[in-house]
Amino acid sequence: MTDFRVVGERLRNWGRWGDDDERGTVNLITPERLAAAGRLIHKGRIFDLGIDLDGTGPQNGRFRINPVHLMSETGAEQVFPGGFRYADGYLFMPIQASSQWDALAHVFYDGLLYNGHPADELTVKGAARCGIDKQGKGIAGRGVLLDIPAVRGVPWLEAGEVITPDDLDAAIAAQGGVSVGAGDILLVRTGWRRKFLEQGQEAGFMAGEPGLGLASCQWLRDRDVAAVCADNWAVEALPGEDPGAFLAVHMVLIRDMGMTLGEILDFEELTEDCRADGRWEFFFAAPPLKITRAAGSPINPLAIK
Amino acid sequence: MTDFRVVGERLRNWGRWGDDDERGTVNLITPERLAAAGRLIHKGRIFDLGIDLDGTGPQNGRFRINPVHLMSETGAEQVFPGGFRYADGYLFMPIQASSQWDALAHVFYDGLLYNGHPADELTVKGAARCGIDKQGKGIAGRGVLLDIPAVRGVPWLEAGEVITPDDLDAAIAAQGGVSVGAGDILLVRTGWRRKFLEQGQEAGFMAGEPGLGLASCQWLRDRDVAAVCADNWAVEALPGEDPGAFLAVHMVLIRDMGMTLGEILDFEELTEDCRADGRWEFFFAAPPLKITRAAGSPINPLAIK
Amino acid sequence: MTDFRVVGERLRNWGRWGDDDERGTVNLITPERLAAAGRLIHKGRIFDLGIDLDGTGPQNGRFRINPVHLMSETGAEQVFPGGFRYADGYLFMPIQASSQWDALAHVFYDGLLYNGHPADELTVKGAARCGIDKQGKGIAGRGVLLDIPAVRGVPWLEAGEVITPDDLDAAIAAQGGVSVGAGDILLVRTGWRRKFLEQGQEAGFMAGEPGLGLASCQWLRDRDVAAVCADNWAVEALPGEDPGAFLAVHMVLIRDMGMTLGEILDFEELTEDCRADGRWEFFFAAPPLKITRAAGSPINPLAIK
Amino acid sequence: MTDFRVVGERLRNWGRWGDDDERGTVNLITPERLAAAGRLIHKGRIFDLGIDLDGTGPQNGRFRINPVHLMSETGAEQVFPGGFRYADGYLFMPIQASSQWDALAHVFYDGLLYNGHPADELTVKGAARCGIDKQGKGIAGRGVLLDIPAVRGVPWLEAGEVITPDDLDAAIAAQGGVSVGAGDILLVRTGWRRKFLEQGQEAGFMAGEPGLGLASCQWLRDRDVAAVCADNWAVEALPGEDPGAFLAVHMVLIRDMGMTLGEILDFEELTEDCRADGRWEFFFAAPPLKITRAAGSPINPLAIK
Repeated sequence: MTDFRVVGERLRNWGRWGDDDERGTVNLITPERLAAAGRLIHKGRIFDLGIDLDGTGPQNGRFRINPVHLMSETGAEQVFPGGFRYADGYLFMPIQASSQWDALAHVFYDGLLYNGHPADELTVKGAARCGIDKQGKGIAGRGVLLDIPAVRGVPWLEAGEVITPDDLDAAIAAQGGVSVGAGDILLVRTGWRRKFLEQGQEAGFMAGEPGLGLASCQWLRDRDVAAVCADNWAVEALPGEDPGAFLAVHMVLIRDMGMTLGEILDFEELTEDCRADGRWEFFFAAPPLKITRAAGSPINPLAIK
Repeated sequence: MTDFRVVGERLRNWGRWGDDDERGTVNLITPERLAAAGRLIHKGRIFDLGIDLDGTGPQNGRFRINPVHLMSETGAEQVFPGGFRYADGYLFMPIQASSQWDALAHVFYDGLLYNGHPADELTVKGAARCGIDKQGKGIAGRGVLLDIPAVRGVPWLEAGEVITPDDLDAAIAAQGGVSVGAGDILLVRTGWRRKFLEQGQEAGFMAGEPGLGLASCQWLRDRDVAAVCADNWAVEALPGEDPGAFLAVHMVLIRDMGMTLGEILDFEELTEDCRADGRWEFFFAAPPLKITRAAGSPINPLAIK
Repeated sequence: MTDFRVVGERLRNWGRWGDDDERGTVNLITPERLAAAGRLIHKGRIFDLGIDLDGTGPQNGRFRINPVHLMSETGAEQVFPGGFRYADGYLFMPIQASSQWDALAHVFYDGLLYNGHPADELTVKGAARCGIDKQGKGIAGRGVLLDIPAVRGVPWLEAGEVITPDDLDAAIAAQGGVSVGAGDILLVRTGWRRKFLEQGQEAGFMAGEPGLGLASCQWLRDRDVAAVCADNWAVEALPGEDPGAFLAVHMVLIRDMGMTLGEILDFEELTEDCRADGRWEFFFAAPPLKITRAAGSPINPLAIK
Repeated sequence: MTDFRVVGERLRNWGRWGDDDERGTVNLITPERLAAAGRLIHKGRIFDLGIDLDGTGPQNGRFRINPVHLMSETGAEQVFPGGFRYADGYLFMPIQASSQWDALAHVFYDGLLYNGHPADELTVKGAARCGIDKQGKGIAGRGVLLDIPAVRGVPWLEAGEVITPDDLDAAIAAQGGVSVGAGDILLVRTGWRRKFLEQGQEAGFMAGEPGLGLASCQWLRDRDVAAVCADNWAVEALPGEDPGAFLAVHMVLIRDMGMTLGEILDFEELTEDCRADGRWEFFFAAPPLKITRAAGSPINPLAIK
């Protein structure tokens, strides 16, 4: 079993965008690449990849809870000049309970965050460095979807199944050779969302998941991918390849490579459209809420073709 | 004083996109217009128009409170195999306390929401019709910024100052004749955010504001604008033109025209850039969180030039 | 199967304490009875009947969530003159997720609350009538514990097992003939908390429960009991006796009789002590938080012997 | 100006109830004293000293916010067998925003909590030592009210006015020589709540307050008082006597003496009654919610005469 620390050291991007950098691989989305991404909008169709924020979400209440939305006003009891009435409400949620970006401050090991920022800057007041607010001017660019279950001929991968570089290459080949390159936002479909939609909470969405393995980190680094999103809740396979290293892919991608992860997304409608028109690339925009010093943010990413 | 009900009836879009429609003027962003908007990205620069979600926000705690973000994990006390550690947190906020979209269910009068949906469908369980979740596949398209204080030669307009169609036309002229047309998202800069940034909470951000007057509703309808955003908290002037009709512009725009409003945005950096390069149009993407049945959603809109 | 409406009509206390009354059977705790209860404190030992408010609670996240407590300050990053440092935090919880009083506004049927107050006074703004704030001056008096599993010779009753008047009488007999009379707060031990403590969440605390049956309502009314508390989450048996009437005991006790219920309490330590000293009566004090217009309140009742 | 550290060292109760103690002066409420307190209930009248938990509270939203109570169910949209309907809601609040107990973990200096417990045990997960959950079996006993404004012949003391041992002695004398002794819970009325009730939020409830001075700490220690409650928000005078030591009384009482403080209480109705019947002592019961590891808890204390 490869030691994730060895992989992490080899793939590390620390200092690549300056010693003070807090944005990591999102820096790879250069102005030129962003402008080119805008030209991918052809048919003017939007796919919303965020799931509903309500009690139907995948959280089981043990680790995290689903978002709680409560009304504070319905208008029924109001009296304003002219007859104006309004509805209002509150939202309470774990920032990572639903569709979300991980901030680079979300994960660390050996006392250091991405770019060598000391982990003791993570306090009850939040992340002084690498919080999600540092990604406010993003994350938008060229998105590419790879449909792994299609390659394997299954409706979804099962918990613990590892997606390898060969799987990624096979998906590219099966999808007409769509390129995955520098500054791209890669969307990896594992089918885990599909399983949840078909079988519900009882199927154990949060109990494990299929996802990337450690070898795929090298693949992502070789292509200088800017961000990875998935339809599971942690991008990587769980249980992982090495029982001795919990969430090893998180540690390498986020802490060593400085790569932001998008999780609990829904690619179902987008996948159907890509299969239909054969185009697996699109403009992608997923601005995080600028929650100061937060370890992540709920999002509703848009894929626009 | 024109009766807002007369204006509302004249400008009403009910039935225009079908009797079941819950999206209103966002329907004006056709696929063609969206695709054209993508081609407005030239220099690949992103402007994030959302303000920080934290205690520095403009809410004074009487009407609404600022967002509360609390950490639940800093990693310090965790023990996982391999040394993995993670940070996590919770968000609690009024959905309309910060940068946000109003849902079409946010405002009504005379017992009816936009498109004639009955207001009694607004209950403690939220908005069965016209909730912000119905705008999940949006809101993206061509954005245009109009800088009203620049036209008037002031740093910002004062509370209660009304922006008229003449102001809007003057801004267009001053900005090189930038067009405002069908399916556009109009950003109206009043300077109210600038005043807050310079003078702080004590200056009374929530106590009133400059903004659109009733006559501008006709102007927006004539051009078939898809959505209006502003750097104040209610788009319209407060106190309003007619003491007998509280938030009359809200009532006409949201309830009669079916127009979604974006509020408490920050146009400062974007304005500076537009002044510098003379281009006041851009690609705009502001996906709402899909909070089921909610009257609005926090957002971080991106303007991309 | 007896129709709960027939029972409710027979036991109804509407008008008994005035047409405007919002406190119900708590009115039975007269000044004299309260003063007498104070004299029950002999050995000066306090038993706290509230459970811990944290993630170990019995909620499974589907219906309600457990309380969420988050720290906002630990003192580590503070600088005050003299060296002062402080810790602080926030609480977010469903008001009925943990040890709690039901307000009389908690339950109704046929459009009427206790005392005939119209149910449409229950709105998004809370309960205009019969909210828990109306019980602020309480609830304290003489408490009596009845240990039902002991009578049956089991560690706990199982879900759906109905506690009958015979059970209550048998417990009284087994406990030396302790009286249950006017103005008393009756604590009914079903053992359901014991089962949870021994078997954990997986045992299905919220999936059903043993508890009072409809016939016991008459028993409580005959004795003019002021309030009933239990170590389960709804006082009554679930599934109930009549599949055609969900929570029938709630409807009769709360809505017809005006009796406040205390739920999710822990009687284990108190029971042990009562078995040891043979005294099953005590002073009882369980002040609700005065949450304006709320349907209930978290509590930590004290039994003082 | 006396150095609070000198006072603190002199009055320190560390080790007095064992090196592991986390309850402090509440230990002074012995079983005998508690039993005697029960016999103070004569006329059977309850005074609820907690304020309403709602938006009318004293918080101004800058430092803390007032409690937020939101309904989740009103019953209107429910369908259950038999016609059962229920109301429910959520509470979100800073634990110290309203009537509350400070936990002994609430305040520290020089790296140590009460009894020498290390302050680094205060983390994002809460207070491992001295949390409010450690006071679950309390706080009840003999209460005594001292009405300071009455002694001074004013409706209320003003912000910064210091209550001295002479004031406390004068109040005792004026109140017929009521005793204040070992294990008592002392209620100090400053009139600050009265001012808030008469003048509202604009009067600056949270901007300062009258209260105890450092010399009163000795007075409390001499009498072995178990706890102190006040109708202001920090018990002590603010601004304090020594500009160089913020909240010095907090530091001495909580951290050195191990004394729990009750704050933001309402003594108005109780005071009126004590003036009328000449009895300033009563049974007092204020159980905290057992919020695990919390720095405090909202309460609704009952004074029972």
